[in-house]
Amino acid sequence: MTDLPDQIRITEEGPREGFQIEPGPISTQDKVRLIQALALSGVPTVQVCSFVSPRRVPGWADADDVVSQLSSDTATRFTALWFNQQGIDRAVRHRDKLTLIGTIHTVASEPFCQSNLQRSLAENRLAMNAQCAAHRAAGIRVEKVSVMAAFGCNFAGDLTVDDALSAVADGMQIADDSGEHISEIALADTMGWANPEQIRRVVSEVRSRWPEPAIRLHLHDTRGLGIANAYAGMCCGVSRFDTTVGGLGGCPFAVRESSSSTSAGRSMPPGNIASEELVLLAHETGVDTGIDLDVLVEAGHLAEAIIGHSLPSAVLRGGSLTRFRKTASARSAS
Amino acid sequence: MTDLPDQIRITEEGPREGFQIEPGPISTQDKVRLIQALALSGVPTVQVCSFVSPRRVPGWADADDVVSQLSSDTATRFTALWFNQQGIDRAVRHRDKLTLIGTIHTVASEPFCQSNLQRSLAENRLAMNAQCAAHRAAGIRVEKVSVMAAFGCNFAGDLTVDDALSAVADGMQIADDSGEHISEIALADTMGWANPEQIRRVVSEVRSRWPEPAIRLHLHDTRGLGIANAYAGMCCGVSRFDTTVGGLGGCPFAVRESSSSTSAGRSMPPGNIASEELVLLAHETGVDTGIDLDVLVEAGHLAEAIIGHSLPSAVLRGGSLTRFRKTASARSAS
Repeated sequence: MTDLPDQIRITEEGPREGFQIEPGPISTQDKVRLIQALALSGVPTVQVCSFVSPRRVPGWADADDVVSQLSSDTATRFTALWFNQQGIDRAVRHRDKLTLIGTIHTVASEPFCQSNLQRSLAENRLAMNAQCAAHRAAGIRVEKVSVMAAFGCNFAGDLTVDDALSAVADGMQIADDSGEHISEIALADTMGWANPEQIRRVVSEVRSRWPEPAIRLHLHDTRGLGIANAYAGMCCGVSRFDTTVGGLGGCPFAVRESSSSTSAGRSMPPGNIASEELVLLAHETGVDTGIDLDVLVEAGHLAEAIIGHSLPSAVLRGGSLTRFRKTASARSAS
Repeated sequence: MTDLPDQIRITEEGPREGFQIEPGPISTQDKVRLIQALALSGVPTVQVCSFVSPRRVPGWADADDVVSQLSSDTATRFTALWFNQQGIDRAVRHRDKLTLIGTIHTVASEPFCQSNLQRSLAENRLAMNAQCAAHRAAGIRVEKVSVMAAFGCNFAGDLTVDDALSAVADGMQIADDSGEHISEIALADTMGWANPEQIRRVVSEVRSRWPEPAIRLHLHDTRGLGIANAYAGMCCGVSRFDTTVGGLGGCPFAVRESSSSTSAGRSMPPGNIASEELVLLAHETGVDTGIDLDVLVEAGHLAEAIIGHSLPSAVLRGGSLTRFRKTASARSAS
């Protein structure tokens, strides 16, 4: 009835997103355990760490150690995040373990660019040009344009489809200028503003203007619409999603800005869409993910044990439907 | 891009669903406070109580007192739930406060009927025939057929579209036999089995076979797909939904059956879809609800204060977008 893809491919960002926002400290060993548990579920790609300044993100001071301890005998691809030359330098030292892909980061909102990257959109363009050159020098291909705040912004308010298109166009221009070929455009709902109709509009406009690159959605569930947004994306044929196990993580800016007098002291708003919820949605609608949902749910419970509190994923509470189906088959067979 | 309705109308079931499942005790005064707070948000209908045996549902022993204390100077309709002659007798005593509508309850799953209603489907048909006569004797019109477990069942497992259709057909036949005119068919995902594609299939088949009655969806968010399911319903033009403030409530059977060794001791699975999340979905996609979302969010925080723990609604954590839009307008105007 809809244009669902035959399969979707999930990039699990729980370790990278989650361990940077959790108060911690979380041991290197626990980080490695969770990553290996996720790999065991069959998740195609896990973003395992951030190569950022330990002063800015203390939770990732041990990024090199985490990667060094990962077992490489798995079908899961391990990736990492970095933002500058120091990050590139650290990443290339782990070529044996990591799949290295360069990303051009753009932002659909000027004030969010200022607040999050501490530079104007114009300055960001120059920085991304320089970063393309740095990737080239390090032998890393730049294949991805990623747009932050593509659907709305706590600082700028509502954004138009044109704001998103213009940010994508910027990224594509930077790639062109640097002679890079972009195979993926990622649209991030960084602060949880998207709704399903907007997802359809933005995705269809981006695809109509840039038909070749695959589209990826990076969705947050800040206001409960995350899985509906993912479904709307799937209905337009989007087949690549970023998720986090249990719904780990979240944008620190979104958290700070959403505190109000009535919600102060309560648990923080949900972060990224939960991997288990998206996998359940996919499987129940006949879409393959390559993932064993029940093994993934176990990884979610491990994540909760490691961070010491429960996570927002409803599937971690309600469970998958597997055991009910088993009992029902046994009943009808008897 | 989709066939969204111009408006949806929500029946808020938080008081009825929530106060029967919360361990309590919750004072009559607090129940009345929450109902009045919900009415203040502009919710068109609030199901305020259950006229059931206090032995079976101790939380509703004070149902008569709650209704007596409700203020009737509000545009909000108050309704109630009942299952037998005793319930009808209690309900009619509150004709001045309550909108009384009779419902024919059917079930798409034989084992769930046995487990939840303690009778077979065949026995339920007879019971519903008798209940139609009892409603008629009490001067209550029977206008609604409501199908429990319409999308799957913890006991029977997966159910087909035909299972749902057959339960609706049963209900319509009972109405016909009793000379009642059905204006609404409610489809309940009692145990959280539905997915958005299934919602589309079942809704379109029900509508094609019974084009006249309005369709209502009663959805649970047991596994995180509730709002995606509501969106799929809206995409097929469904404009009536049952929700609960904060996501209060849940099916006791779903809770009991979903306990596993790994999730034991954790918070219970989410109940009904959260009113705030559905209202946010509607408003963000341009669909009217008649509800002030920020006042509803305050009612959600009141519900949390009354029951003494936080509720699953993401909007209660993340907040609405109102204050960000206000700040952004002020910024761009200055």
